[in-house]
Amino acid sequence: MNTVVTDLSTIFGIFLALLMVGIAVTIGGSAKAFMDLPAVLIVIFGTFMLTAACYSFDEVLRSLALVAKTMVYSSEDASVAARQALKVAEVARKKGVLGLQDDIGLTAHNPFFRRAVEMVIDGTTDEEVTQLLAQEVHAMQDRHTKSSSVLRKAAEISPAMGLIGTVIGLVQMLGHLSDPSKIGPAMAIALLTTLYGAMMSYMILSPLASKLERNTKHETLVMRIYLKASESMARKENPRRLELTLNTLLPPASRVKYFL
Amino acid sequence: MNTVVTDLSTIFGIFLALLMVGIAVTIGGSAKAFMDLPAVLIVIFGTFMLTAACYSFDEVLRSLALVAKTMVYSSEDASVAARQALKVAEVARKKGVLGLQDDIGLTAHNPFFRRAVEMVIDGTTDEEVTQLLAQEVHAMQDRHTKSSSVLRKAAEISPAMGLIGTVIGLVQMLGHLSDPSKIGPAMAIALLTTLYGAMMSYMILSPLASKLERNTKHETLVMRIYLKASESMARKENPRRLELTLNTLLPPASRVKYFL
Amino acid sequence: MNTVVTDLSTIFGIFLALLMVGIAVTIGGSAKAFMDLPAVLIVIFGTFMLTAACYSFDEVLRSLALVAKTMVYSSEDASVAARQALKVAEVARKKGVLGLQDDIGLTAHNPFFRRAVEMVIDGTTDEEVTQLLAQEVHAMQDRHTKSSSVLRKAAEISPAMGLIGTVIGLVQMLGHLSDPSKIGPAMAIALLTTLYGAMMSYMILSPLASKLERNTKHETLVMRIYLKASESMARKENPRRLELTLNTLLPPASRVKYFL
Amino acid sequence: MNTVVTDLSTIFGIFLALLMVGIAVTIGGSAKAFMDLPAVLIVIFGTFMLTAACYSFDEVLRSLALVAKTMVYSSEDASVAARQALKVAEVARKKGVLGLQDDIGLTAHNPFFRRAVEMVIDGTTDEEVTQLLAQEVHAMQDRHTKSSSVLRKAAEISPAMGLIGTVIGLVQMLGHLSDPSKIGPAMAIALLTTLYGAMMSYMILSPLASKLERNTKHETLVMRIYLKASESMARKENPRRLELTLNTLLPPASRVKYFL
Amino acid sequence: MNTVVTDLSTIFGIFLALLMVGIAVTIGGSAKAFMDLPAVLIVIFGTFMLTAACYSFDEVLRSLALVAKTMVYSSEDASVAARQALKVAEVARKKGVLGLQDDIGLTAHNPFFRRAVEMVIDGTTDEEVTQLLAQEVHAMQDRHTKSSSVLRKAAEISPAMGLIGTVIGLVQMLGHLSDPSKIGPAMAIALLTTLYGAMMSYMILSPLASKLERNTKHETLVMRIYLKASESMARKENPRRLELTLNTLLPPASRVKYFL
Repeated sequence: MNTVVTDLSTIFGIFLALLMVGIAVTIGGSAKAFMDLPAVLIVIFGTFMLTAACYSFDEVLRSLALVAKTMVYSSEDASVAARQALKVAEVARKKGVLGLQDDIGLTAHNPFFRRAVEMVIDGTTDEEVTQLLAQEVHAMQDRHTKSSSVLRKAAEISPAMGLIGTVIGLVQMLGHLSDPSKIGPAMAIALLTTLYGAMMSYMILSPLASKLERNTKHETLVMRIYLKASESMARKENPRRLELTLNTLLPPASRVKYFL
Repeated sequence: MNTVVTDLSTIFGIFLALLMVGIAVTIGGSAKAFMDLPAVLIVIFGTFMLTAACYSFDEVLRSLALVAKTMVYSSEDASVAARQALKVAEVARKKGVLGLQDDIGLTAHNPFFRRAVEMVIDGTTDEEVTQLLAQEVHAMQDRHTKSSSVLRKAAEISPAMGLIGTVIGLVQMLGHLSDPSKIGPAMAIALLTTLYGAMMSYMILSPLASKLERNTKHETLVMRIYLKASESMARKENPRRLELTLNTLLPPASRVKYFL
Repeated sequence: MNTVVTDLSTIFGIFLALLMVGIAVTIGGSAKAFMDLPAVLIVIFGTFMLTAACYSFDEVLRSLALVAKTMVYSSEDASVAARQALKVAEVARKKGVLGLQDDIGLTAHNPFFRRAVEMVIDGTTDEEVTQLLAQEVHAMQDRHTKSSSVLRKAAEISPAMGLIGTVIGLVQMLGHLSDPSKIGPAMAIALLTTLYGAMMSYMILSPLASKLERNTKHETLVMRIYLKASESMARKENPRRLELTLNTLLPPASRVKYFL
Repeated sequence: MNTVVTDLSTIFGIFLALLMVGIAVTIGGSAKAFMDLPAVLIVIFGTFMLTAACYSFDEVLRSLALVAKTMVYSSEDASVAARQALKVAEVARKKGVLGLQDDIGLTAHNPFFRRAVEMVIDGTTDEEVTQLLAQEVHAMQDRHTKSSSVLRKAAEISPAMGLIGTVIGLVQMLGHLSDPSKIGPAMAIALLTTLYGAMMSYMILSPLASKLERNTKHETLVMRIYLKASESMARKENPRRLELTLNTLLPPASRVKYFL
Repeated sequence: MNTVVTDLSTIFGIFLALLMVGIAVTIGGSAKAFMDLPAVLIVIFGTFMLTAACYSFDEVLRSLALVAKTMVYSSEDASVAARQALKVAEVARKKGVLGLQDDIGLTAHNPFFRRAVEMVIDGTTDEEVTQLLAQEVHAMQDRHTKSSSVLRKAAEISPAMGLIGTVIGLVQMLGHLSDPSKIGPAMAIALLTTLYGAMMSYMILSPLASKLERNTKHETLVMRIYLKASESMARKENPRRLELTLNTLLPPASRVKYFL
């Protein structure tokens, strides 16, 4: 049984947008005219270096690792998570918390929920469950906020590096105005850094930052649902009461009807 | 009896502005020079893809469906809604809430009010009426806020895609400077993406987002008027008191005099 | 006796700035080169249509009517208003509120104050006076805020329409590069929409919005002075006490010494 | 004895930056090419007119008068002011407040402090001293905030006027493309308004507004030091206590040790 | 024993980004074409002068001195600082605060902590320790905030100076259009101020300001850890309790396990 749905919107959206730009480039002539190593270096390497100067190399690399996970985001629908939590709570009610041992597989889809249920089985008190899990939620938010601010900073720096590269290219071209046949290609190369900077910022970095911010909200909601469920089981509450609590957390359109 | 007025400002305003641009284009020569499939693809398709990358395909499509409704917005004037609510409350006072059964037609113009009055006839308590209806108001605001933020994001992305398309076109053109007769048409096509991006953002997406935000405020007001009226009927209050309450919700210029 | 001073700064400031631009245009050659009907239509008509799409035709027209009044703003100096209010309060103290009947002419300059004093003569209680007048103040602020936000939106849209018009003109011109003699005039016309858009936004709409916002603050102050005075008369307070109250409302430089 | 230090940073900074631009202009050829009366009129006169349209002629002139004082700002160091205040408080303690009459010269450097001490000598109560002086502090902040907002508005308008002037110049030039020898000089003149607008905004108006805002903060601090000292003397407090109070107002680096 | 780690990200990031720009310049032809003394003067000198006009010469120089320290930032990891503080607290617990005299070397890496521990050894009460150290933390934040706002202002001014320089260069060039061979080099030099302004702002000033703001947060955290530790020792608390306190200050990922 798997409640996890992989959201490929980000990877597909960015990929298709880039593909379309690639097609436009190929149709219009040779794609080779759009490749220029110095331009790539100035924009990509320069953006990386200056972002690291704003934070530190460590923080930038850790952000990139986290972003790789955002590209293929495996999320649970909040209302599916709520139903799953209610199902586990129902088992806990019927068989007792120790009886959950046999049905631990119901939590296999979410390591956070698994750890939480194991704590309940081990007899951890509800205050301790809440405290330890809330700390994990907070740590997740902390990591994500840091990463999305690194991405936003990089999205700000890359068009600036593109501009700097283009001005450098223009200055070089203007020194060779005497040979008109070279003006065109030289200006084309000068414009490439602007193109790379704009594409990097608007087609890659900003969407990733937006998606990361959106996912943080969503993941917080799912984690809070499991947190509330584990707390409720540790407190040996009636699962009907849990359903009411979960519905106050859920957005109106996703509210669940399980017992009621 | 119909209190609903259809507000066609948005559809007319956008249509007439686009028409005028179309006329300017036609007067100035062949409109064909303004059609370019790759340019359309880069801006419209690219904006859609990247907006989906920021949210998800589902959310973007749901927003578009909601926006279609905004184009032809059928609103009630808040003071007409207040008078209508007072008329129903007067009936409830005279004939009793059960007597409303015969006059349910008075609520036909607004499904939300109809559901609310049916709850009152069914004898739902005023607390329950308030709670269930407030939840519906909140759900409406939720949906609208999400949609307008998707539109704002798309309005931000489309000029960027226009810029990227134009830079690509310029780079391609600069590779063919040797044949001066091609410079003009090539640059014209390069500029088309900028034109499409700017038109999409400033003439379509931004006005729709603004209108959606404005309608959300207005619809919230109308729904709160009906909510207060239903609550008041469920509580079997004097309709004169309801008039006072409704007037505190209404903007000064729209206040009503029904009983007083 | 007239305490109202007409502030022509806005009408003079905008007129003189436009005149100067007109002179610069005339000196530099034929002013005819700056007239272009399609450009006027795209910028003025387009800005109007899109602003209406963001709000509604009604709201935009109502804003324009209000703005016409702002152009020639007849304001009272706050400290003159305070002195006038104290003079009326002194009369009320000496002759009683009914005695104000003979001196109603003292309020002729301000219909709001006149209505307020008439209410006091009619024996309205101070709570009622406050409530009804505060509602009028609020309605005025409401109308002004709406209008200035419509102006700000139009000031945002008009340079965008100017840009769109210019890009259209450039695309048309680039299709006719083969005839170099037409390039200049075509580009000149293309630039006109940018000029119109910038002038409309920076020289007309933004100053009007700024002035309207400033006047709202000032008018609120004057109305609150008359409100406090009427309240004080209805309460049959000592006018010396009113002077203290008014001085806390007035900015330090405009405080008055009437009795004290 | 003089505790006032004149801060010429603003006048020197702006003057030297303008001088450098002037030198660059002179080195590059004839400075005459940078003088153009219509350009000066459009930018300077236009910015003045439109700023007046946003506020009123009176307010703009009053702001300019205040700004002239900012150019040569005579400030007291906050910790020097605190020491001076403590010295006067020490005298008041030893000789009594009446004894201050002979040492009124100690307050000669600051008219605000002088007025405050005279009030103390005249036996004004501490509540009255606080109220009257706080009103003066508030009036100073009021005047400065108004002036800096006028400057900020002008700094916003002047580049827009520069842009409008440049577009006008370009349109005029494009009408005379047939005579290529005139293109260069015409475009040069068109660009002058952009240059004037940018210089006026970034090199004069914005720095003046920033400095005015910074000075307001500083002057408020100095005035509050003298206010607290006068209040303390009127209350016949021990000056050691005053020292503690003043040190809580001062930034950490400027704290004083006088008695302690 | 040294717990201090030098963070060279800023100096390396900025240096490598500049180096790469330098390489791109050298590959593309002679680097000499990118050197122009008047351009350097207008951008660097002009930015310095105008920043000083916004603040004062003193403040700008003090900010630069502080920034030099940011380039090579020697920070302590927060969890290493916490462990070090716990080690010292353990010694204080075992040998008594006077016994710390022999182990003062444990605080050698951080002058702030050293001063704090010496105060504890001298028998300063915990309230006094807190008050004096909190004042030092506040003074550090004060200095840093001032400096980063000076940097942000300079980062805003430098591209504006670059624009002004470029417009001046263009006007000069346009006066010599008759000699086409000079157009290229003249425009190249005109563009250099834009390049310098953009590089100064985006590659140097903004990253330094960002890093300074980030370091301020980090340094505040480390200082607060030592502050809490010193307070705890002065209060002769159990170090296990201190560990709990420090873990509430530390971000989740850096929490320490020393005693527990």
